[in-house]
This record gives sequence, C-alpha cells and structure tokens, in this order.
Amino acid sequence: MFSVPEIDENSIPAGFRWGAASAAIRKPGRLDVGLIAADKKCAAAGAFTTNKFCAAPVTLCRELLATSQGHALGIVANSGCANAATGESGMADARTMSADAARDTGNSDAPFLVCSTGVIGAAMPMDRMSKGIADASKALAATPQAFRAFAKSIITTDTHEKMAAGKLEINGRQVRILACAKGAGMIAPNMATLLAFVTTDIAIAPSVLKDVFARVVNRSLNCMTVDGDMSTNDTALILASGASGACAEAGAELEAFEAALLEVMQSLAKQLARDGEGATKLIEIEVSRADSFESARRAALAIANSNLVKTAIYGRDANWGRIACAVGYSGAPFELRSTTIRLGPLELFREGEPLPLDEAAAVKVLEQEFVRIDVQLGTGNASATVWTCDLTEDYIRINASYRT
Amino acid sequence: MFSVPEIDENSIPAGFRWGAASAAIRKPGRLDVGLIAADKKCAAAGAFTTNKFCAAPVTLCRELLATSQGHALGIVANSGCANAATGESGMADARTMSADAARDTGNSDAPFLVCSTGVIGAAMPMDRMSKGIADASKALAATPQAFRAFAKSIITTDTHEKMAAGKLEINGRQVRILACAKGAGMIAPNMATLLAFVTTDIAIAPSVLKDVFARVVNRSLNCMTVDGDMSTNDTALILASGASGACAEAGAELEAFEAALLEVMQSLAKQLARDGEGATKLIEIEVSRADSFESARRAALAIANSNLVKTAIYGRDANWGRIACAVGYSGAPFELRSTTIRLGPLELFREGEPLPLDEAAAVKVLEQEFVRIDVQLGTGNASATVWTCDLTEDYIRINASYRT
Repeated sequence: MFSVPEIDENSIPAGFRWGAASAAIRKPGRLDVGLIAADKKCAAAGAFTTNKFCAAPVTLCRELLATSQGHALGIVANSGCANAATGESGMADARTMSADAARDTGNSDAPFLVCSTGVIGAAMPMDRMSKGIADASKALAATPQAFRAFAKSIITTDTHEKMAAGKLEINGRQVRILACAKGAGMIAPNMATLLAFVTTDIAIAPSVLKDVFARVVNRSLNCMTVDGDMSTNDTALILASGASGACAEAGAELEAFEAALLEVMQSLAKQLARDGEGATKLIEIEVSRADSFESARRAALAIANSNLVKTAIYGRDANWGRIACAVGYSGAPFELRSTTIRLGPLELFREGEPLPLDEAAAVKVLEQEFVRIDVQLGTGNASATVWTCDLTEDYIRINASYRT
Repeated sequence: MFSVPEIDENSIPAGFRWGAASAAIRKPGRLDVGLIAADKKCAAAGAFTTNKFCAAPVTLCRELLATSQGHALGIVANSGCANAATGESGMADARTMSADAARDTGNSDAPFLVCSTGVIGAAMPMDRMSKGIADASKALAATPQAFRAFAKSIITTDTHEKMAAGKLEINGRQVRILACAKGAGMIAPNMATLLAFVTTDIAIAPSVLKDVFARVVNRSLNCMTVDGDMSTNDTALILASGASGACAEAGAELEAFEAALLEVMQSLAKQLARDGEGATKLIEIEVSRADSFESARRAALAIANSNLVKTAIYGRDANWGRIACAVGYSGAPFELRSTTIRLGPLELFREGEPLPLDEAAAVKVLEQEFVRIDVQLGTGNASATVWTCDLTEDYIRINASYRT
C-alpha cells in the first residue's frame, strides 16, 4: 500500500528550522501553534482552496505571495481555530500572526505566511496566540524531533501526523524534500481542510516553482477526497531555500525534482485518505481509457465521493452497481460497450454486460485494508488515480459533535 | 412540518385501478410488483434520471412515451431489482414486463410504462415476474386499499409508503390528484432512486401535461436530496385520465391545477427526505435573495448534500460555519457583506460577520424533528427551498449491507 516514512537526521533539507508550542486554543497543553523559519528568504509558492468563503489566512497568503513576488521567510500555522467567517477582525488577527512570527524570529526580509485550521466562525484567541508564537520560536531547531512537533501541532481530528520525505541528486549535490500535512474531514479536491507544508533545499526561481507545484498538487492533493466537503482554509505551501546549492530551472533536473516532489505529495495524499475520519480502509480508484485526465479524474472522484460506494466497501459488499451508477452521473464521457469495472483482480462488468460475481472472492478483496477499483471508460487513453476511504459510523460520531 | 395525508374513498381520481402482488423478487411474501391500470388511454408524461448509466426501464419509458406521443394505459413497477447495468437482456425483460401488463389487463390501445428499483446489476427473475404481474392484475381495484398496496409494493429501504392527495374544482367539477413515491437512499436531484407515480382525472393535452409536470418536478423532487447519489432508475410519471370531465389547457384552470400538483409533489418530497435512510430529522433549507432560482437551488443543495452539515444537525451542534463553507464551494454567486445565515429563528451570521451564538437556544432549535436553515445571498430576489435529512450511523448500517 504505502508506508509512512521514517524521518531522520538525513531527511532534513538545509536552511530551515521547525518549532511548535501550545497556545491552548481549544485544549490546554496540546501543541497547536507551529512555526517554520527559513535562514534566508526562500522561493515560495502556494495552492489554495477555491471556496469563495475562504478564510482570512488564505486571503492573506495570496496577498503576501503576490506582494513578495513568490518569496517568504517561513510559515506560522495553528490548529483549533480556522479564522474563517470572522470578518474584518479575522484579517487583522492573521496579519498580527504574520508580524509576530517576523518579530520573534528577528527576520523580516520577506513575509511569514499564515495558515489556520479548526472551527469556522470562532475568533482567534490572540493573547494566547502571540504567546504561543513566541514559545514556538524559542523551540526552533533543524531536527527530526522539531519537524515532528511541527507536524503534530497542525493536526485536528487526524489520528496521527502525516509526513513524507524525498531525496534526489542533481549534479552531485543532494537535494532533500520534507513535507507534512493535516486533514481528516472536510476533505475534497481544490482542496481539503488540508494544510500541507513542503520544504526543500533546491534552488529554483519562484515562477518555476509555482508551475511545478501547481502540476504536482493537481495529481496528488487534488486527487484525494474524504467527504467531498471543500474547506474554507485549504492551503498547500512550498518553500525552497536553495541551501543545497543544486539548481533546477529546466530540463532533466527540473523533471527529476518534479517526479520526486510528486512522490512525496502522493504519499501525503494516501496518508490523508487512509486517515480520513472514521476510515478503516484506503481506497485507490484508477479510471483509465478516458478522453482526458480531467474526465478520468471526474469519474474517479464521483466514485470516491459516493456515500453508497464508500459504505458498501466498509460493509465488504461488492455492490459494484453503485460504482457504475457514480460513473453514470459524473458527467465524464464513457462508451458503455467498452466500459469495464474491476474490484481488485476481479472483473465485474465488461463491455456493457455484468459478469457472474464470485461473492467469496469479492469478500476476500474487500476484507483488505487497501482496496483498488479500476474502471475503463473506453473513450481514449488518459487516466487518473484518486484516493479516498470508506465511510463508517465513526465518521458520523466524530462529526456530530466536533465542537463539543 | 407536514402531515402524511389520509387517503380515503374521496381521494381516488376517476378512471384508474391499482393492484399489487408478491413475485418474491428478493424476499418471499413481500409485495414487490405493482400495477396501475387506466380504463382508457391517458395523457402521460415523465421525468427521468439524467444518469447516463440509466436502467433498461428508463430507456424503455422514454421510447414508449415518444412513440405514443405522450399516451399510456398504465404503469407496471417493481422493487427488489433495478434492472440496471443488465445489458441487452435487461431491455428485453423490460419489454416483456410491459407486454405482460397489456396482456393481463386485456388492453393495448397505448403502452404500459415500466419502472424498477432495487439492486443494480442483477437480472430480473422473469418467470416469477410474469406470474407477479398476472397476480397484480387480478387484484386491480379503485379503492384506497388497492392504492395503498401499490404504494407499498414499490418501497425498498423506506420505512413506510409515501402518499399524497390533492383536490381542486374546475368549472364546478371535482378534480383529484393522487400520488405515491418511494426512495430513501441514492437520492439526489435529477432525480433519486426515486419512483413517483401521479394519477389525476383532469383532462389535459399530453404536451401541456409534459410542461406542467417538468416545472413541478423541478420545484419538488429535484429540490430534495438524501445522499447526493443520483440513481440509474429515477422516474416520475403522471397519468391524466380526463374522467373528471374538467379540462385544463391554459389560464386560471391550468394555474390552479399546477398549484395543486405542486403541493402534492412537495408533500412527497418532504416525506421522502424525512424518511431518508437512517434519518431522524427533516431539514428545510431556503436560500433567498439569490440572482436566480438555479443559483439559489445550487447553494441550497450544496448545504443539503454536505455530510458535515448533516452530521452536525444530527449531533445538535450549531456548527453554522459548515453552512457558510458549503455556500462557498457551491459555485452560487453571493455578496459576503450581504450574506445572512439563520438557524430556525436564530440569526448566526449577518452581513459578513458572525454573531454571538446562544448555545442553549441553538440546541433547542436542533432538538426538533424539523430544522429550518435560511440563507440570504444578497445578489437578487430569487429563492429556492430544498429538503434533506440528517446523516446518522443508521445510514451507514443500512448501506453497508444492502444486498445481504
């Protein structure tokens, strides 16, 4: 399936420190403020929610990246309060968080970006927040322990932190990519209450980084869904320090970097889906023989967002008709006479006709923690892979009383 | 909220009989085949799923209504098997059901329409089905009991049959409308695994009936969602016998008929939403001050389909931020500074700013079986009302093992 990678001394990209602290935003003693501080001004890029009701930090990040022409000194993040639907005072609070981080790290060559996740509509407790940022800045260190503390500080209903690391060599120099993410519910493409933070020591121009990051997010975080609810706060940020001395501007070097970054981000996407609220399984859906990547992804996401498909897989019920049904309403073009549906190794529907179902074999496939669905649409050669999880009673329990 | 109306002798439109029988499609002894037989050729119209993976009976109904230029003699319906994703043999089975109904009622002036609901991808047990249609035709009667037996024969995971009746007077003549529906899961607009059957004794031309029915379905069944899953089989059919002698072709008569029909169909929509799989509450969402009915409905449906909104209401959690969030990703235009959100009588968000939340008052609102959400978008004067239900552990239990 995938393995959550070990993060060790050798995973840490040069030029960054991480820190975390507790500001008691919702619960005393819980790590809920995190700080990433770069030694020098970095190239920076972001991908943001398309939700028009976006949170103050999202508006601020967009503004800061535009003003700085794709540069940043670091990121301040918190869990417990989303600072969304908070009006003018919410914008002021987000600005204060950015200024606090700059003050506490003693560096203002470029802005600190701001991300928040948690309850919508509640005001940020700014007295405790400012103290928390100061504490996090005192904890800053370039160690796996500090990175892990940061990764912990951003999670909400996640059962564990999500981390991924990658390496590549460019012209004899080692380049490192280190990323973490949070998100377990309100997760859907474009994007999720999903925060993802990537640091790398590659040297790259902001404009190039922006394009690469957009392509990679499109095939990783935007191919993952837990419940189809797109958050007000979704943000993925990447900072490139250049401290490795290795440069990737074009050609084979850039391709190698993009491939390594995609692997890191797809690892995060799978970890996020598997840890979806209440989930017991990771579901991977590949739609192929489509007329475009967009059509393939649309069909795959319709399957991935179907409550009926997700509950059937939870119940080990090979009710593949629900998969066909979701393809049917997805809007993706398909040729019924060439449409094929597979559940793991079992072919269930071929060229418009159902095949006999071996119930015992199907139950064996659905008993696994990793379930794969393959659908061929018969309209071209494009494909997309999407990750999701099953829908269980625990999702209801978690979300019926999130604030209480 | 609404009341499920009593159906009595005086509710029965002239010119129809109803019958039901057991064909043991999934369970022996259960009513699962229903028949509506008109005395003479009726004007007929239908609204169908837009799912491209539509079931054989849907394809057949469209074809029959086109060929007959909007006429039918009746309807044969079954539960337990959807006859969807069943290939060429499924089409042949649907045709046989139509022919069986004509043979058993001894009338073939116009076609019998066919509707199926139940498991997708399973073949119809045609030997038992033909016997079931014969038995249903022997049971045909113009009584409330026979109508109720028909309404029972089409339900699947519904906890009870859905029925509604309406009356109006045109030029001194009494016109009756009598309708029933089924559907509890896989319910979403355009439409649901929802079957709805309306009979009326008004005299109306097929082309006029078609337009009226489309408008009414758009503001009733297409404004209702349980889980956002659009079925392969959704069908609403109306038959008008003309036996009342009252004619509605245009003007005030037609308007009166449309208003009465809308009331009947909205009653069905509310009954369907309230009986959504695992539901404990009926949720009514009105979005107003929108730039168009379509925008208003889009925003309302985004709220209604949000798993997070639905679980919060189930959990009596006034997490109104999730409502704002759903509006934000709905794609409906809104003016943040004019956007207002109300939960029952409580104003929670006004003109872009959150208001203090009285938790005790909110819990009182959410304890009710009927919960109303009002959202104003501040972009115009159009509005739409949508009905849904809460999302509970029982939805998961029901759908995790539907086939077993």
